[in-house]
Amino acid sequence: MVILIQCNDRVGLVATISGVLAKRNLNIISMREHVDVQANRFFARIVTAHENNIAELQQELSVLLPADATISINPDPQKKVILLVTKEYHCLSDLLIRNHFSTLGATVQCVIGNHDILADLCKRFDIPFHFVSHENKSKQQFEDELAAVIQTYNYDYLVLAKFMRILSPAFVQQFPLRIINIHHSFLPAFIGASPYKQAYNRGVKMIGATAHFVTNDLDEGPIIEQQSIPVNHTYAVSDMVRAGKEIEKSVLAKALKMVFEDRVFVYENKTVVFEH
Amino acid sequence: MVILIQCNDRVGLVATISGVLAKRNLNIISMREHVDVQANRFFARIVTAHENNIAELQQELSVLLPADATISINPDPQKKVILLVTKEYHCLSDLLIRNHFSTLGATVQCVIGNHDILADLCKRFDIPFHFVSHENKSKQQFEDELAAVIQTYNYDYLVLAKFMRILSPAFVQQFPLRIINIHHSFLPAFIGASPYKQAYNRGVKMIGATAHFVTNDLDEGPIIEQQSIPVNHTYAVSDMVRAGKEIEKSVLAKALKMVFEDRVFVYENKTVVFEH
Amino acid sequence: MVILIQCNDRVGLVATISGVLAKRNLNIISMREHVDVQANRFFARIVTAHENNIAELQQELSVLLPADATISINPDPQKKVILLVTKEYHCLSDLLIRNHFSTLGATVQCVIGNHDILADLCKRFDIPFHFVSHENKSKQQFEDELAAVIQTYNYDYLVLAKFMRILSPAFVQQFPLRIINIHHSFLPAFIGASPYKQAYNRGVKMIGATAHFVTNDLDEGPIIEQQSIPVNHTYAVSDMVRAGKEIEKSVLAKALKMVFEDRVFVYENKTVVFEH
Amino acid sequence: MVILIQCNDRVGLVATISGVLAKRNLNIISMREHVDVQANRFFARIVTAHENNIAELQQELSVLLPADATISINPDPQKKVILLVTKEYHCLSDLLIRNHFSTLGATVQCVIGNHDILADLCKRFDIPFHFVSHENKSKQQFEDELAAVIQTYNYDYLVLAKFMRILSPAFVQQFPLRIINIHHSFLPAFIGASPYKQAYNRGVKMIGATAHFVTNDLDEGPIIEQQSIPVNHTYAVSDMVRAGKEIEKSVLAKALKMVFEDRVFVYENKTVVFEH
Repeated sequence: MVILIQCNDRVGLVATISGVLAKRNLNIISMREHVDVQANRFFARIVTAHENNIAELQQELSVLLPADATISINPDPQKKVILLVTKEYHCLSDLLIRNHFSTLGATVQCVIGNHDILADLCKRFDIPFHFVSHENKSKQQFEDELAAVIQTYNYDYLVLAKFMRILSPAFVQQFPLRIINIHHSFLPAFIGASPYKQAYNRGVKMIGATAHFVTNDLDEGPIIEQQSIPVNHTYAVSDMVRAGKEIEKSVLAKALKMVFEDRVFVYENKTVVFEH
Repeated sequence: MVILIQCNDRVGLVATISGVLAKRNLNIISMREHVDVQANRFFARIVTAHENNIAELQQELSVLLPADATISINPDPQKKVILLVTKEYHCLSDLLIRNHFSTLGATVQCVIGNHDILADLCKRFDIPFHFVSHENKSKQQFEDELAAVIQTYNYDYLVLAKFMRILSPAFVQQFPLRIINIHHSFLPAFIGASPYKQAYNRGVKMIGATAHFVTNDLDEGPIIEQQSIPVNHTYAVSDMVRAGKEIEKSVLAKALKMVFEDRVFVYENKTVVFEH
Repeated sequence: MVILIQCNDRVGLVATISGVLAKRNLNIISMREHVDVQANRFFARIVTAHENNIAELQQELSVLLPADATISINPDPQKKVILLVTKEYHCLSDLLIRNHFSTLGATVQCVIGNHDILADLCKRFDIPFHFVSHENKSKQQFEDELAAVIQTYNYDYLVLAKFMRILSPAFVQQFPLRIINIHHSFLPAFIGASPYKQAYNRGVKMIGATAHFVTNDLDEGPIIEQQSIPVNHTYAVSDMVRAGKEIEKSVLAKALKMVFEDRVFVYENKTVVFEH
Repeated sequence: MVILIQCNDRVGLVATISGVLAKRNLNIISMREHVDVQANRFFARIVTAHENNIAELQQELSVLLPADATISINPDPQKKVILLVTKEYHCLSDLLIRNHFSTLGATVQCVIGNHDILADLCKRFDIPFHFVSHENKSKQQFEDELAAVIQTYNYDYLVLAKFMRILSPAFVQQFPLRIINIHHSFLPAFIGASPYKQAYNRGVKMIGATAHFVTNDLDEGPIIEQQSIPVNHTYAVSDMVRAGKEIEKSVLAKALKMVFEDRVFVYENKTVVFEH
């Protein structure tokens, strides 16, 4: 069982929490705790033995913890996700394979594409694909159609698995901290369009990728995971794109694993990620 | 203030510990806890605000924790170390520089060499150097002389910073979990002599280094840190040796940082390392 | 066009080769040359503009280069491969996806499994799957059946994509330097069975994977690629297995890319890999 | 012997060069060649056996190669360098140690500091230290004084080993492609002041460092080497600074190794680095 708690810091929080658990005879298998001293903010992730009466446990913790505390007990370990894509297959296929073999830590509900090129791949894995074209539509109309499809499913997260349309603040606000994006650069370098072309022109010796929650500021949401790999003078732009796809796939998979295992907290545009 | 606790696991340990701290109004700044489920062993590292009456705190914890618990409160944050070397300067110089600028997290008491080639470097940093040759002596006589020098200093750890003599079990037993070695291979590959020559002959594509506590079994003590770097067909043995020196230096520095910051527990020939 | 040359070294080889190319007005786009000084062996990979009369070029080079030279001009850039698997999907699915989207640099002819669990996945990608069980058969009978299936296809390489049966020398000899294996450890550490269990028991801080050509000595063939990733005390054996699958997939993909792009030479149980 | 050639590309360059070498019976030990197809630019680095008559060889190559070719034969393998520093010791000490043990691939002529705090360290290694304060001076006066000290030495490169003053274009122009800087960020992210503070505020999960040639555009010169390391939510700004120092030291050492071994070409604000 996983317990997630975030609140303002004060003396005795760990004692309070662990006291409640001990009284219920719940063994703590692992505990990660972090205090952001600058923000005076407390974060804890506790893995315990199984508890039958979760409502009671939640009640007991609520009474004793600060009023601002968010307490999440045993969030559904099998998250539900909707994937949004455009034309590139590399992230989508990685997620579909993991989903197919039940190692994603989530269930893919459907895939929505603003192009239909990836419909065939989804069909091969028996995953519903919805084609919502952006062409000849206002952004609002396009996003209304997206939202209409999304609302027909249960979901915990929307994953932009190389979805190449910029979403409006109005759309994003409907899904606070529920949209995860893979950005094809080592943010904050090369914000915006054609990051590999920018990287090539600058003659960099490494390229990277960034997975982040989407907020209203483009490419400025809380970063979950970043990785980078070396490149050199023999890399044409196309080679950087190809190498970048490998790292994008890896970064998105790692970030989603952290999110789906309930290892990620967000506070003030930053994340706390309790990795293995 | 740092508190380290290791004992057999049971329900309520975190509650007990944090309860004691809360009663004393000691805020927990960070807490890392790990249970080795297979070994039923509990490990915790807690950073708290300052406490004046450590003896009392120790007493309170001892009474409430299992009888087998080892409790260490606020171990001296400035460890004392003795370095043992042979001829290679790369690890020694790295440690002397950090020591000189007070960023080692420990104080180098002296350097002991079985060759005198590094005496000059030590002198440049005003560090006592003791030349204890192994030549024309039995191993026991040599080790007796080493021990005699060591006993004239206060120390927490002996660091074998490329000390190329194999120490006898009898010697090692005098310093249980107090001797740290840097081994020039990615253990357990290439145990024994000339690991870079072995690696070259095998045509490996990576080489590594391993820092570990020294126990009676040569190259078999608990591993603290390992790192590796890519090599390729252009590397002669001498290039591997040179590249290996960089990684040895890096691995030893990282391992010592972990040890000196009291982040390392040892249990049954393995370590628990609570990294940043 | 790619030209690969391997021969004993002597003065003037580059001049000879480039002279032939210049006379034919073939521009050299990239050239990688390596001399193994210890073995007195010359390796070159040359990328040039297109040449129509390859037979004539081959003839001209043969006449001028040493008699022991192996010269390969414009090997088929689209290799044909047969994949052998057992039960694990992670490497197979990665290769099938790349094959499906034509980014593998090779064409998967078929998949052979000694279990039938992965037949469904192959079917989803319209790839023939052959179930050749090893049960209730002598090794020779099993391998004869494997060979019989293999011989019905054209192929350049056999890829053991987590094929968990040990092949006999008699079988291996039929496919010299044509069998590529992914080994789930950082060879030469943890040779043999259950490397992750071995790694767990040893308390290592990194795990790795190795792609190599298969020769008669188990796990001893020429290494093509190795990578490693950090692990720590929180990793159970099952976590190491899971993390290992990611690195196995990555190492095999990288090794195959190098092989399929004709960047790999083998000589005396080692490889020369001209990476990007 | 090392031969470096850069010129516009055309058919037959390798044949011309290797033909000249073969005629002189000079064996090619290793050859790296790169054509920047977009810029139509040819780069070659050739390691050969020893040649006595370098002037004649240079003459023969000049006659046969394009008029725009720059040909450098056997550049002094022991470069002479001047180090510029401010207050931080980590890069300086690394270079002084390597210099002291003759593994830098260059000879440190002197150190110039705009603070005098590092004078003591230089004295310990018998390296001249020149204190040139920037205080109460115009930038031009400060730079004139720097130049005056520099001109009293022979040197190939000026290395800004954490020199925290911005040099004027007028100064930089005096030393074209002769000034190498270590920048404490993964350029082009976090250009300008306090990159670690910027990185902390952005909540990045990796930090990096960049070694580059200094040109008139601040932080925009040709990049030689970049590396990055993971960080996480537990890193305060001071932890990032500390971790950054390790990576800065490593990146600068690597870049200088490449430069001192004549493995680096510059063309149009990019580098070609023929690594091992």
